[in-house]
Amino acid sequence: MVRPRIALAQIDTCVGDVTQNSAAVRAWARRAADAGADLVVFPEMTLTGYPIEDLALRASFRRGAEAALLETATALADDGLGGLAVLVGTIGERDGRPTNQAVLLRGGVVEARYDKHHLPNYGVFDEFRIFSPGQDPLEIEVAGARLGVVICEDIWQDGGPVSQLRDVDALVVLNGSPFEEGKGHVRTELAARRAHETGAPVVYVNLVGGQDDLVFDGGSFVVGADGTVLATAPQFVEHLLVWDLGEPGPQVPPLDPDEEIYRALVTGLAGYVRKNGFRSVALGLSGGIDSALTAAIAADAIGGTNVVGVSMPSVHSSEHSKDDAADLAKRIGADYRVQPIKPMVDAFEAQLDLDGVAAENLQARVRAVILMAISNREGHLVIAPGNKSELATGYATIYDAGSIGGFAPLKDVDKSRVWALARWRNNHAVDRGELPPIPESSITKPPSAELRPGQVDQDSLPPYALLDEVLDAYVEHAEGRAELLARGFDPAVVDQVLALVDRAEWKRRQYPLGPKVTALAFGRDRRLPVTSRWREP
Amino acid sequence: MVRPRIALAQIDTCVGDVTQNSAAVRAWARRAADAGADLVVFPEMTLTGYPIEDLALRASFRRGAEAALLETATALADDGLGGLAVLVGTIGERDGRPTNQAVLLRGGVVEARYDKHHLPNYGVFDEFRIFSPGQDPLEIEVAGARLGVVICEDIWQDGGPVSQLRDVDALVVLNGSPFEEGKGHVRTELAARRAHETGAPVVYVNLVGGQDDLVFDGGSFVVGADGTVLATAPQFVEHLLVWDLGEPGPQVPPLDPDEEIYRALVTGLAGYVRKNGFRSVALGLSGGIDSALTAAIAADAIGGTNVVGVSMPSVHSSEHSKDDAADLAKRIGADYRVQPIKPMVDAFEAQLDLDGVAAENLQARVRAVILMAISNREGHLVIAPGNKSELATGYATIYDAGSIGGFAPLKDVDKSRVWALARWRNNHAVDRGELPPIPESSITKPPSAELRPGQVDQDSLPPYALLDEVLDAYVEHAEGRAELLARGFDPAVVDQVLALVDRAEWKRRQYPLGPKVTALAFGRDRRLPVTSRWREP
Repeated sequence: MVRPRIALAQIDTCVGDVTQNSAAVRAWARRAADAGADLVVFPEMTLTGYPIEDLALRASFRRGAEAALLETATALADDGLGGLAVLVGTIGERDGRPTNQAVLLRGGVVEARYDKHHLPNYGVFDEFRIFSPGQDPLEIEVAGARLGVVICEDIWQDGGPVSQLRDVDALVVLNGSPFEEGKGHVRTELAARRAHETGAPVVYVNLVGGQDDLVFDGGSFVVGADGTVLATAPQFVEHLLVWDLGEPGPQVPPLDPDEEIYRALVTGLAGYVRKNGFRSVALGLSGGIDSALTAAIAADAIGGTNVVGVSMPSVHSSEHSKDDAADLAKRIGADYRVQPIKPMVDAFEAQLDLDGVAAENLQARVRAVILMAISNREGHLVIAPGNKSELATGYATIYDAGSIGGFAPLKDVDKSRVWALARWRNNHAVDRGELPPIPESSITKPPSAELRPGQVDQDSLPPYALLDEVLDAYVEHAEGRAELLARGFDPAVVDQVLALVDRAEWKRRQYPLGPKVTALAFGRDRRLPVTSRWREP
Repeated sequence: MVRPRIALAQIDTCVGDVTQNSAAVRAWARRAADAGADLVVFPEMTLTGYPIEDLALRASFRRGAEAALLETATALADDGLGGLAVLVGTIGERDGRPTNQAVLLRGGVVEARYDKHHLPNYGVFDEFRIFSPGQDPLEIEVAGARLGVVICEDIWQDGGPVSQLRDVDALVVLNGSPFEEGKGHVRTELAARRAHETGAPVVYVNLVGGQDDLVFDGGSFVVGADGTVLATAPQFVEHLLVWDLGEPGPQVPPLDPDEEIYRALVTGLAGYVRKNGFRSVALGLSGGIDSALTAAIAADAIGGTNVVGVSMPSVHSSEHSKDDAADLAKRIGADYRVQPIKPMVDAFEAQLDLDGVAAENLQARVRAVILMAISNREGHLVIAPGNKSELATGYATIYDAGSIGGFAPLKDVDKSRVWALARWRNNHAVDRGELPPIPESSITKPPSAELRPGQVDQDSLPPYALLDEVLDAYVEHAEGRAELLARGFDPAVVDQVLALVDRAEWKRRQYPLGPKVTALAFGRDRRLPVTSRWREP
């Protein structure tokens, strides 16, 4: 039997950076050749980066990507890698419309092209909107073996190109599969099903790295024809997994669930900072758990010395808050500043007659102005420590230091998990004989915005453990009031949470809407209607 | 020949407000019956409002809409309108997935249902993402005539349900067609083509009103089998257009192009304010043209006494700016306030060592904090006067008074058109013997942010007439650098504008991104990648 050696090049690409992505293909193809590979497979849309959204609709971008593809083919041959089969992803074109394409480069030329058939159009995916679907399957020959080639969603749908493949020795899949909690098992089980269908192993190569609000976790793998996992690559790092067809390969143990989420957050922030050309971040440190965890994530992502932590105490700030902020900054090695807000708050209050929520919000917004000023002066990316529970319920000030800035590491992490991740991170440090980054009292004290005397979150919200359960059902799983009551939740709590979420729906859309009056606007920014009077009956 | 009387009920619905939308159906059905109609036709998705985006995916919402539909059928009969044929739009269900549905209510029951076949998935539309397509055509009988029924996009695509209709006496189309500049002609020409295909008149009923960032302009009409326009409804108002099959009907003259855009902006703002439960707006008045036009639009939308205009002069503000702001406020009857920013700016500067852009941005953000404080205290919706040219080029401070708030009337209006609309509005006032709302000097003086001495926009940007031409080609029409040069634009200008736009791309996304780590996040907020290193070659 023929046994080609296949290298799975799990790399981190950047959307739009065709030059750098092409250079990465050449470098990793060299590594694959050095490892004796006959074929190296890259992730989905390698040259263009993924997901490219409406960039796909720009003809000049498609021309640029095609030029980079041809140059890459030539350069590989010039590098002495013409004998290596190289499968890369890029953008193609069909009847004047873009396609999501896999390309076989060999001998200095483009030897074959495959356009993705199934274009996902749900969740974070908009591919049916921008791409034209492919119609034909692709089989390639490498070192005497016949390999089927498909792209990501093609194996998530029954039927389609996989069912058209006959007698292949392996099925190769280029993926850009975003991280979701627990998705690893779903992927391997799905691949096992396709392996069974085709009677051949499945080689699954995934993208790794943060790209905008998506995190790609890598975790590439191979399953045998019988569905057994034969080889695995680690998550959250670039990696070359080398596998000989028909043989068992190297495997790594799966990550602890909390570690997996934590590393996803670190990867997302690190990618966003680097790919947008920043080297440092700034955030407010309140002494509370959200900013503490955010700062710890930032320190793990880009190094503690690149984190600017600004304590901005008010007359309502407790001593323990100030102490905890300073302690945290010291533990992670942050660049720590103290900027009391009293003089600015006084200046506003001397001129504007404010009380209640307006006076509370003022303090929060003065902090945001300070952070943005520091960012403007020194070039840091401002990051927002707001968590998912408070964003969902609107328990936050619009344009405060918790919600402004370019990236919010905890935007999709509820408060219960914030605590769990903080504990995991500290335990992880202890396990390694290191100083835990997060002060214990930041984890244990009752959460408070400290915008008025004695304020705690639970004055306004149900206990977080309960709140987060209701949010999970209502927001994540789109359950209605009837379903929530049927689960046994207290009707008063359900009604409180639903009212908060529905009210917060438009509050979360801080960037102003504007009317669409010309043929093309800047693109629609959201999915849920901002104006909706629908209330759960 | 049979001649039913058809009433086109061009009404303004609100997304999610099934109770109010149902009440509107009953009220307008009564008016149609009073006018002797045999059939009344409402716009697309009447009961649910349109567009409902991911609300469609919430099962409890679908149940609520279905209950409202059945109640509406019963109520119409109870109202003595059982003999009237009533075509309404709503959300349906097919194999557990939502559909975009038209329903015939008659005799107190749901007599027939039609699911939209063609689901648009481009521009502002996401329907293929959320709806399941229909498969069957629908013909109904009204007063002895046979009428084909389709929905909006069904007539924009060749083939499909229209081609399946045989020997109908008219084709009735329920629409939710958003306003675009010059779209009126496109609609009537398209309807004429379908009329020719089916050999029957086309009855085109469109939604009216502002819904989030979309404006629906109404402008319902009827074209005869030969393509002649037989009847038209006015734009931007609710209206009942009554037409006897085969006869000419009433017609209104088309609007002047500037008036059409201006009224679209007024409609968009009015709908957003009202549907979100506000009665008043607040904005900064700088004396410049953007805030002047925005205030005039607001006064036309909700009345000048409901507009709070806040002058926030700094040491760099010219006397003419302060005078022009006060003059404008007086002309439109606004609630005018003056809040000098020097004390707050001084408080920040005493503590933070700022110069250059950081010092300029500080002033702009202090204004935003004042506006938000007034909004919090008094309950006004903050609106943002930023225009499309400055948003596209990033010539604005993030979180300043020009970009914060819930709605930006000029977000999709470039600077050249800002001036054109200001002139149109003033001339319109003169034509009607009224005081022009906008001070002439706000229109004629060179635009300036007044954040440093002697600053004018053209220090940093090409002349607006040229800039807006380049933006139109690059942003609106997605042309590349090569195409722009081929049009004869100065390469230096092209490179300057492209660099500004590419740099501003992520700046416009003020709401922080966050990583997606759980199975469902809050929904993706954008289409273009935030992180992209693609630069026009």
